[in-house]
Amino acid sequence: MFLENYIRDIQGFPKEGILFKDITPLLIDPKGTQECLKTLVSTLKNLNIDKVIGVESRGFFFGTLIAQELNVGFVPVRKPKKLPYETIFATYDIEYGTDTLEIHIDAIKKGDRILIHDDVLATGGTIKAVCELVERLGGEVMQCNFIMELSFLNGREKIKDKPIFAAITY
Amino acid sequence: MFLENYIRDIQGFPKEGILFKDITPLLIDPKGTQECLKTLVSTLKNLNIDKVIGVESRGFFFGTLIAQELNVGFVPVRKPKKLPYETIFATYDIEYGTDTLEIHIDAIKKGDRILIHDDVLATGGTIKAVCELVERLGGEVMQCNFIMELSFLNGREKIKDKPIFAAITY
Repeated sequence: MFLENYIRDIQGFPKEGILFKDITPLLIDPKGTQECLKTLVSTLKNLNIDKVIGVESRGFFFGTLIAQELNVGFVPVRKPKKLPYETIFATYDIEYGTDTLEIHIDAIKKGDRILIHDDVLATGGTIKAVCELVERLGGEVMQCNFIMELSFLNGREKIKDKPIFAAITY
Repeated sequence: MFLENYIRDIQGFPKEGILFKDITPLLIDPKGTQECLKTLVSTLKNLNIDKVIGVESRGFFFGTLIAQELNVGFVPVRKPKKLPYETIFATYDIEYGTDTLEIHIDAIKKGDRILIHDDVLATGGTIKAVCELVERLGGEVMQCNFIMELSFLNGREKIKDKPIFAAITY
């Protein structure tokens, strides 16, 4: 089965006029999950990734799976006040206002080769902020990968200098 | 290394007087993650689990890993307005006020044998609400498992009739 077939369209979520791509049918099917994981990991063979970052919260689902498959550490990037130890943060624009993400200051060491995973590449604001956090801690972003890319939103433009991979492109 | 050694004590998080158990050192060490996963899965051999539920958000880390290891589906239980399809919800008391959790109505089928995973068993309010959601959809809670149990908070009392397993007990 094509990976696209595990994604459910939800009209009008989170608000009118938006067609939301629901990944829960993918997660509930172990064959779909395995297939998606295999696809994501297939592009990472020669990158010598040291750590995988998962972005809160939907980036956690495959983030830990990818890290386990590569036998490397997993690092959560989270919304404010969720991480208990000392953090740095990055703020980025969303439709109305701004959002902030944090990372533990000891989560990345200078020279670490980092894979950043999130569920969707949309306008690219989130992933750009996460790349910034990684680089401020001395890490190198080897790839940003996603279950889906909504290519019509041009998120790629925001992280032009980074390798990008999406298992599904809309 | 004992699993306990991967847990970091943070004094005063999320507020004064609380000793927070930080699992990020466990997640960042693939050996620790593998060891914890093995421990959690070791008790599930004969339970014929159909689906694994992970509770937002820290229950997502090991939730997907356990599901993958068992080769079964993963179902997220989430905070309000995060799940895009039709849901049912359960509300439970927290220190000041109430909290609510949701599950997709099509996530569990009548007779499904369910493992519920969360990172910590504390006062038990959350896990009790999740058990209720599972049972309202016709599922059977085969086990509730946790990375850690804070046994001095007596959370077990709230789900007395359910099998409980924690990889670490404080």
